[in-house]
Amino acid sequence: MTEDKPSPIRPTDAEARAMAQELIRGARIAALAVLDPDSGAPHVTRIAFGLGGNNGWLTLVSDLSAHTKALRAAPRAGLLLGEAPTKGDPLAFPRLSVAVETRFVPHGTEEHAAHRAAWLTHHPKAQLYIDFADFTFVSFMPLSADLNGGFGKAYRLTPDDLSLT
Amino acid sequence: MTEDKPSPIRPTDAEARAMAQELIRGARIAALAVLDPDSGAPHVTRIAFGLGGNNGWLTLVSDLSAHTKALRAAPRAGLLLGEAPTKGDPLAFPRLSVAVETRFVPHGTEEHAAHRAAWLTHHPKAQLYIDFADFTFVSFMPLSADLNGGFGKAYRLTPDDLSLT
Repeated sequence: MTEDKPSPIRPTDAEARAMAQELIRGARIAALAVLDPDSGAPHVTRIAFGLGGNNGWLTLVSDLSAHTKALRAAPRAGLLLGEAPTKGDPLAFPRLSVAVETRFVPHGTEEHAAHRAAWLTHHPKAQLYIDFADFTFVSFMPLSADLNGGFGKAYRLTPDDLSLT
Repeated sequence: MTEDKPSPIRPTDAEARAMAQELIRGARIAALAVLDPDSGAPHVTRIAFGLGGNNGWLTLVSDLSAHTKALRAAPRAGLLLGEAPTKGDPLAFPRLSVAVETRFVPHGTEEHAAHRAAWLTHHPKAQLYIDFADFTFVSFMPLSADLNGGFGKAYRLTPDDLSLT
């Protein structure tokens, strides 16, 4: 049905890259899509989000959470960045859907220490639980992204487009 | 690792049901998790959300959207309802992760007419495109839900718990 239509994807330009990078830098939370290990169906939860050492994308998760168990079973995931303001049409505001590969960052490593310091500057309340053994950083490596900048403004972005400069 | 710990899930009570139903009734948008038909990986986007005829859960999607193609290929999906306010700790506010079965509602049916009337009361701007042939209602049937009412307040809810009274 859609094969006969022109592609809705616009060519990526500097404005699209800047919009995506602003969404990444500004995000304190994200929606995380994983595969439910029992049903194989998609499952979506709200997570904390932030930048760690070397501007790597991070979350900090509890071992008790369903999404943590799901990521241990299947590391491919999806992220939605860009919250809608409470006023105005929520679908008119930009958001970024990213396909990511996830990786757990072991406690006691230099990488963990760098992420810990960076995370606390943006999520100071995490001080309460960041050192618990069952709270773990998960690193996100972006594979590709769909930027929706509002109605009719769709772009497909590469990892290079998302690289924070 | 988590097998030795007590379950973090609390027994469902009237307060949990009321919180979930308030999230459902108040939602104008949702995060939708689907399976990317090319990669098989989870993918998450922002969609419009609302109640249709008989209080059924609905979205209105364009055939051009990636999530629409994904749902036509695999109808199981995940929904996240409950936006975080712009002030305060976003992880302290309640949200609902729902496993759903989706179904496309054909144009020209009585069901479509009932949903159309209900949808326009809450999404009046949809008047501009609601009758386009490539915009379709997708109905969500909830299968189970995880309510996170803030730190340490986790519940597992059934479709009966979510039934709007």
